Amino acid sequence: MKIAKENKADYLEIASSLAKGFAKTAIERDKRGGTAKFERDLLRESGLLSLMIPKSLGGKGEDWKTVLQLTRELAKVDGSIAHLFGYHFLSMTSVHLFGSPFQKEKLYKETAEKNLFWGNAFNPRDENLLLKKENSQWILSGKKSFCSGAMDSSRLLISAKSGFDLPVIAVIPTNRKGIIIQDDWDSFGQRQTDSGTVIFNEVLLKNEEVLDHYEQDLQGLFPTLRTHIAQTILVHVMLGVAEGAFEEAKNYTKNVTRPWLTSNVEDATSDPYTIRHYGELFVQLKASEALAQNAADALQYVWGKEWTLTEQERGECGITIATAKVSVAKTALEVTNRMFDVMGARATSARYQYDRFWRNIRTHTLHDPIEYKIRDIGNWALNSKVPEITPYS
Amino acid sequence: MKIAKENKADYLEIASSLAKGFAKTAIERDKRGGTAKFERDLLRESGLLSLMIPKSLGGKGEDWKTVLQLTRELAKVDGSIAHLFGYHFLSMTSVHLFGSPFQKEKLYKETAEKNLFWGNAFNPRDENLLLKKENSQWILSGKKSFCSGAMDSSRLLISAKSGFDLPVIAVIPTNRKGIIIQDDWDSFGQRQTDSGTVIFNEVLLKNEEVLDHYEQDLQGLFPTLRTHIAQTILVHVMLGVAEGAFEEAKNYTKNVTRPWLTSNVEDATSDPYTIRHYGELFVQLKASEALAQNAADALQYVWGKEWTLTEQERGECGITIATAKVSVAKTALEVTNRMFDVMGARATSARYQYDRFWRNIRTHTLHDPIEYKIRDIGNWALNSKVPEITPYS
Amino acid sequence: MKIAKENKADYLEIASSLAKGFAKTAIERDKRGGTAKFERDLLRESGLLSLMIPKSLGGKGEDWKTVLQLTRELAKVDGSIAHLFGYHFLSMTSVHLFGSPFQKEKLYKETAEKNLFWGNAFNPRDENLLLKKENSQWILSGKKSFCSGAMDSSRLLISAKSGFDLPVIAVIPTNRKGIIIQDDWDSFGQRQTDSGTVIFNEVLLKNEEVLDHYEQDLQGLFPTLRTHIAQTILVHVMLGVAEGAFEEAKNYTKNVTRPWLTSNVEDATSDPYTIRHYGELFVQLKASEALAQNAADALQYVWGKEWTLTEQERGECGITIATAKVSVAKTALEVTNRMFDVMGARATSARYQYDRFWRNIRTHTLHDPIEYKIRDIGNWALNSKVPEITPYS
Amino acid sequence: MKIAKENKADYLEIASSLAKGFAKTAIERDKRGGTAKFERDLLRESGLLSLMIPKSLGGKGEDWKTVLQLTRELAKVDGSIAHLFGYHFLSMTSVHLFGSPFQKEKLYKETAEKNLFWGNAFNPRDENLLLKKENSQWILSGKKSFCSGAMDSSRLLISAKSGFDLPVIAVIPTNRKGIIIQDDWDSFGQRQTDSGTVIFNEVLLKNEEVLDHYEQDLQGLFPTLRTHIAQTILVHVMLGVAEGAFEEAKNYTKNVTRPWLTSNVEDATSDPYTIRHYGELFVQLKASEALAQNAADALQYVWGKEWTLTEQERGECGITIATAKVSVAKTALEVTNRMFDVMGARATSARYQYDRFWRNIRTHTLHDPIEYKIRDIGNWALNSKVPEITPYS
Repeated sequence: MKIAKENKADYLEIASSLAKGFAKTAIERDKRGGTAKFERDLLRESGLLSLMIPKSLGGKGEDWKTVLQLTRELAKVDGSIAHLFGYHFLSMTSVHLFGSPFQKEKLYKETAEKNLFWGNAFNPRDENLLLKKENSQWILSGKKSFCSGAMDSSRLLISAKSGFDLPVIAVIPTNRKGIIIQDDWDSFGQRQTDSGTVIFNEVLLKNEEVLDHYEQDLQGLFPTLRTHIAQTILVHVMLGVAEGAFEEAKNYTKNVTRPWLTSNVEDATSDPYTIRHYGELFVQLKASEALAQNAADALQYVWGKEWTLTEQERGECGITIATAKVSVAKTALEVTNRMFDVMGARATSARYQYDRFWRNIRTHTLHDPIEYKIRDIGNWALNSKVPEITPYS
Repeated sequence: MKIAKENKADYLEIASSLAKGFAKTAIERDKRGGTAKFERDLLRESGLLSLMIPKSLGGKGEDWKTVLQLTRELAKVDGSIAHLFGYHFLSMTSVHLFGSPFQKEKLYKETAEKNLFWGNAFNPRDENLLLKKENSQWILSGKKSFCSGAMDSSRLLISAKSGFDLPVIAVIPTNRKGIIIQDDWDSFGQRQTDSGTVIFNEVLLKNEEVLDHYEQDLQGLFPTLRTHIAQTILVHVMLGVAEGAFEEAKNYTKNVTRPWLTSNVEDATSDPYTIRHYGELFVQLKASEALAQNAADALQYVWGKEWTLTEQERGECGITIATAKVSVAKTALEVTNRMFDVMGARATSARYQYDRFWRNIRTHTLHDPIEYKIRDIGNWALNSKVPEITPYS
Repeated sequence: MKIAKENKADYLEIASSLAKGFAKTAIERDKRGGTAKFERDLLRESGLLSLMIPKSLGGKGEDWKTVLQLTRELAKVDGSIAHLFGYHFLSMTSVHLFGSPFQKEKLYKETAEKNLFWGNAFNPRDENLLLKKENSQWILSGKKSFCSGAMDSSRLLISAKSGFDLPVIAVIPTNRKGIIIQDDWDSFGQRQTDSGTVIFNEVLLKNEEVLDHYEQDLQGLFPTLRTHIAQTILVHVMLGVAEGAFEEAKNYTKNVTRPWLTSNVEDATSDPYTIRHYGELFVQLKASEALAQNAADALQYVWGKEWTLTEQERGECGITIATAKVSVAKTALEVTNRMFDVMGARATSARYQYDRFWRNIRTHTLHDPIEYKIRDIGNWALNSKVPEITPYS
Repeated sequence: MKIAKENKADYLEIASSLAKGFAKTAIERDKRGGTAKFERDLLRESGLLSLMIPKSLGGKGEDWKTVLQLTRELAKVDGSIAHLFGYHFLSMTSVHLFGSPFQKEKLYKETAEKNLFWGNAFNPRDENLLLKKENSQWILSGKKSFCSGAMDSSRLLISAKSGFDLPVIAVIPTNRKGIIIQDDWDSFGQRQTDSGTVIFNEVLLKNEEVLDHYEQDLQGLFPTLRTHIAQTILVHVMLGVAEGAFEEAKNYTKNVTRPWLTSNVEDATSDPYTIRHYGELFVQLKASEALAQNAADALQYVWGKEWTLTEQERGECGITIATAKVSVAKTALEVTNRMFDVMGARATSARYQYDRFWRNIRTHTLHDPIEYKIRDIGNWALNSKVPEITPYS
């Protein structure tokens, strides 16, 4: 396998090549669920896990736009792997958002050196994980749900309730004593994201593992960009899955589908209604693609603002991302539903497992309600109000 | 279990009671696929399999409207069982459409007496089953795909190519020597319809088992109603599945869903956007229900016409059924997709297997292309043309 | 012209015949706006204005279902006239809802005898009309907006604020001293409904003209059916307009539209996409028609309940009507928009004034917000709550 | 008024300033129809008519992207003026597509010097205009329909049938003897585009007025870009109209609309369903905007290719433009329909004439059928076929 070297084109090529391999086992792995250990290791070996780490710290010096492009590329064949890949960067860059420069440098360097794969135990809606300090010793107890990518990870980004105003955020090695990662992720879609439960039994944390953020007055909005990053990754995963489904459908229509018996056409690719479906879906995909690119640009822009970020800038970026998300979610649901109309009855055979595209999208589009994204956008469009700052907006 | 006795209300009650039982194992059986042997036996015991057989022949003397109502009732919890139930009547009544009065009487009587369950090997698009006559002996060789309900059936309705203009249609005991029913139905939806392949190795037929139809000049259109019956059953299966999904979603929203964190409502049932989804879906369900009832009425009407049926009557009935189908298919896809928007992310857990509703509908709606139903309707609306007579219209 | 005599079929024939005449001037009258004096007089002469008056009081003894059917028939060619026709019965039957048996009998008789045409000054959201009693003399001052059918009417149903808990409702001759009916209705649609402003300058009312309702404790829900009647009429006006538009489009496609230059079809009626539009719109029209008929049946049913009507019965009827309204409104907007896609660019010529269909529907669908109908339906579907009793639900 | 000087920002400012003025009379002019003489003269005075003429020939040296941006800006308040403005450049640049370098230079120079406004008599589907050569004298006879901008123009681009393979294309002064421009444009939308009939009574043409194109073998595809230019202009007109409608709706909702009586909100801008409409429409507008910008970029790119343009490049550009058109047309119909749902019943008053937005869009979206754009796109997406080269694709 080619190892990432120098430039963006290289990285895309590597991702495409990985994708080609992942595609071969996608059906079997969707059935199986669980951890994509083999594929995760290939990602480690590819060198792509250090994409966003500055060259000075041993990484590739790329930006969010590259990460998102590659996430989308992987999602074309495997929504789960793409999700884990994107979220790796979400977790890793959280040390930049919440930690001290020292903490960031240390962890970035380690990640680049050892090809560390990051997972999280961060779900903001789950308040069952508690951190307390006893005799200058941090102790973590409880559990977290929806911990995408925790299994088989090297580092774990953690958010926990504490006596402080803000939740405390920390980074620890996943193999720390007392951590039990349960293999209980069982959704019908995105089946290899390992988004299960992590249990913490009196887990001890070192001081340096607790990110400095909690001690600060909330002086800046930079850390709140975590939400925007997560949402933009979700957008690109969904877009990629939709594009992958569209490609599969095309291949099937061209190679397998028979013309309908009253259609008076020679082959399925000449059917006027089939062509119409493809035309409509293509328009939707192109619109969603354009908005997703706007979202990536907007994210990269505010990311560069760091601690000078204003609420207005954050809000406008959020609206751009939300706009992309609403469009992409709708498109992806359409494509993964209507792909069957252009393939026909036999495409429901388990042999193809084409329903996985819909199952992945249907699961993914529920991460947080689309309706509230629309509400935020409407409030912006009509009332010029930026969205409330929350872990989802 | 209550056994069917006297009147329609009784039959609906029995179906509801059966449905209640089927619901308990629906998730497990959807996972497993294969033959619903236990449930099929309950249907046998219920006496409902003779619903449409005249009382004079030992049956219940009901009509298509009752059969369709009960099919819909069963579909609320199990689309596969409902499909098998409806198609039992499709196969059985085919002897009325294609056979002599004597053949019909004999087979109706047997069915009522022995609670026979009918299956088919009839798929009109598959021409791989051949019937030949050698020395006054009928011999059947080849195979048929999509043979819903063949497995575990007592009688098999068969359509085969032959030297005659029309395909020959026959009824034989399913356990006849040389018949192999393969357990190869593997679609992602309607997983217990046993719609797999049946293989015929030099199967011998008696003269009386071949329905007289093939010898007749096509004197009447009555036999072509088979299409209308099949389509109307499909409509009622889909409607029932959609209604069942809607009920499940309601229960979940009321009992499990948490209000969204920026919604400012106390509970999920007060969320304005959730209420809106339910309102929109309810309107669609009511519209589809009204059209499905029109379809059932229209079918019963032309059924009563028997050999006096005109092409115009057949055509108008077909349009009424197609209209219902287009509406119901659209509604059912909407409901089984959007039910997740009103339940939330946790409803994707395998514990509930709520995706089975969409999988069932997505499979079912591909039986024959909705687009060509719309074309037929448009040709009627604009050009006053009745649909071409085919096995699907 | 044929005069209404004996039975329902007669009345429909009369309405159709009137419609045929109205069609000839519909374009010109849409341009002109104002009062359809000539057409109103034809309605008077037709005898149809006494349709719902019992035969014992000199009327035809028909019910709401007939009124609604004829309203829909007229709406096919002229939404304004249909609205005036339907609302005539809404105003007239209000004396049954709000008045004493004596008041009802007297006014019904007069209406039948003299072919009186009723209008209203009733808009519940406009509180600028006041009624006071001075020295046992009722005096009415102020104004009302949206007074459909007031112009050229013989009787005026009035709602006014007063010192009582409920608004006072009264019926007076339209030519009563002090009443000024302004010709200020200027919406872009439903242009001949005369839904303008009526000004009341110290108008004196007789005691018997004030309906007894205000004095009663609100002992029953019967009077609140006024809302249901109004909404059901609106539903049938919209449905008729949509059906009329559909017919016009068909005629145009068949007789004028040229096939598109890359379509490879001989004539526009064979265009696969044109046929598809007609198919889809036909399905929507049939669904809306079925729901509108359910609404008419439900209204007639609760109307028959009179003072025994329960809140649950009222509520369920309201949901049935709202369901029809949501469906019909959506269908009507679709039909009046998409009719142009199947006719082509030249159909925008002022010669045809086909945009009047959309203008009528767009105006009519805003009578009260569809969104709140959907909310009411959702609350019923999800929470089993009947809609709040208001002048619009 | 500011006169165009130096740079793009200036030109946008001028267009905005003109738009502000046009807005004041837009309602009145929509009622009146006919020629916008005053506004056309302001466009002449503004200097913007020479935007795309190279500086070396006395123009501003801008490109299609600027022209399209300004077209969209004008369309926000007046779809007709925007159409005339955009089509001026379509007609003028046709001398670059079809003429010799000498012809182009001469006409560009004249246009810049004298602020000439161009119109056309070009409709490719109308074959009633004939050009013949008698004794080395060109004579033009017959008529053309849909001649947008012919009235009050200085130069007329003409297409006529002749004995040659290709139609002959010519440019003549509009005031040439024998030309009669009829004031017969009467569509319900785009009412001041003067898209009426032009009659030619034995009109004499000079040799130099006939563009050289007809004599050439069709050596290149460059002239076929005329289609792409026209379509991209239409896209930007529609987008601008939709954006203008959205702005008007917002102002109305904020300043006039009352909250609905059962909404439990203080003001209309807090209504959850109103906010939802704005959110959804905003997403659609943003998607359409992004695609329209892609179309402008693609057009500018192929324009720069000139005579080296390949069929593949032309085709891909055409798909990009068609994609934008399908999206923008759908969005614009949605916005101009749904704007009323967020304004309420009183917004139908003739005082506002808000229906003009829908009338403009409905007329504009019929220029050529959207369905065939979707077909072309589908054929590209599924079968990798570029659209057939026609005057519309």
